[in-house]
Amino acid sequence: MQLTQFTDLSLRLLIYLTRLPEPGMATIQEIAEYHQISRNHLVKVANSLANQGFIMTTRGKGGGIQLARPAYTIGVGEVVRRTELNMNLVECFDAPTNQCRLIRNCFLKATLYEAQRAFMAVLDKYTLADAASFGTNVDLSALSGDKPQTS
Amino acid sequence: MQLTQFTDLSLRLLIYLTRLPEPGMATIQEIAEYHQISRNHLVKVANSLANQGFIMTTRGKGGGIQLARPAYTIGVGEVVRRTELNMNLVECFDAPTNQCRLIRNCFLKATLYEAQRAFMAVLDKYTLADAASFGTNVDLSALSGDKPQTS
Repeated sequence: MQLTQFTDLSLRLLIYLTRLPEPGMATIQEIAEYHQISRNHLVKVANSLANQGFIMTTRGKGGGIQLARPAYTIGVGEVVRRTELNMNLVECFDAPTNQCRLIRNCFLKATLYEAQRAFMAVLDKYTLADAASFGTNVDLSALSGDKPQTS
Repeated sequence: MQLTQFTDLSLRLLIYLTRLPEPGMATIQEIAEYHQISRNHLVKVANSLANQGFIMTTRGKGGGIQLARPAYTIGVGEVVRRTELNMNLVECFDAPTNQCRLIRNCFLKATLYEAQRAFMAVLDKYTLADAASFGTNVDLSALSGDKPQTS
């Protein structure tokens, strides 16, 4: 159960931009160096994010990329839905290519749908501003045991 | 966002066995033919499920595989946790291999943890008996819009 590297890098790029002081502009080169990621790879990610309307580009000297709208208006769920190309948890989620013969009488699909909706409902509660925050405005009460490092 | 094919096939095999009349025994060949899946691939899945204690094998004529315990005692979440080898949604979930420099002050990780827990909490509500059922004992109320085919 993984998100694609493309989604992972998209979120990292957006969080990097979110944290910048006004006017929140950076070059792809700078972000690639910070994250030690291939610049070519990050160019593809940035082009996709620009096409989706999450970032905008200013050309020329002093130019770069920046968020196209305020971070508090961009949902984490929205980003994941747009960047994660395949949301078909299992084969039967995609009717045209499904080969599973259980499909017409199997409640596993309903179970997995419900789980996926619960997953996305959590992401829909948070914005890029939340995800990028250094503070404590993300609800950690749902977590227990193996907590992520928060400081 | 996908589960692996290994998990998908594990669930199909277990649901196939769950639906059999007593004593619930089948050969791998029979299941491979039913699902039109490579027998060799299914042998690996069955070996893994046997090692995990989900199924047991009876050798010799009339032998085959069957559930090692009643379907209503095997949670869908339990199966997914055991068969899905990589539950690291993004790179920073795995501290030893993480390269992301945002890790020590990023709430995205907490957000994704919370979402994954919500996902697994749904799967933990259901057993193989629920998932294999032809009836309506799976709660569909959490679903809306694009409902899975249920008959």
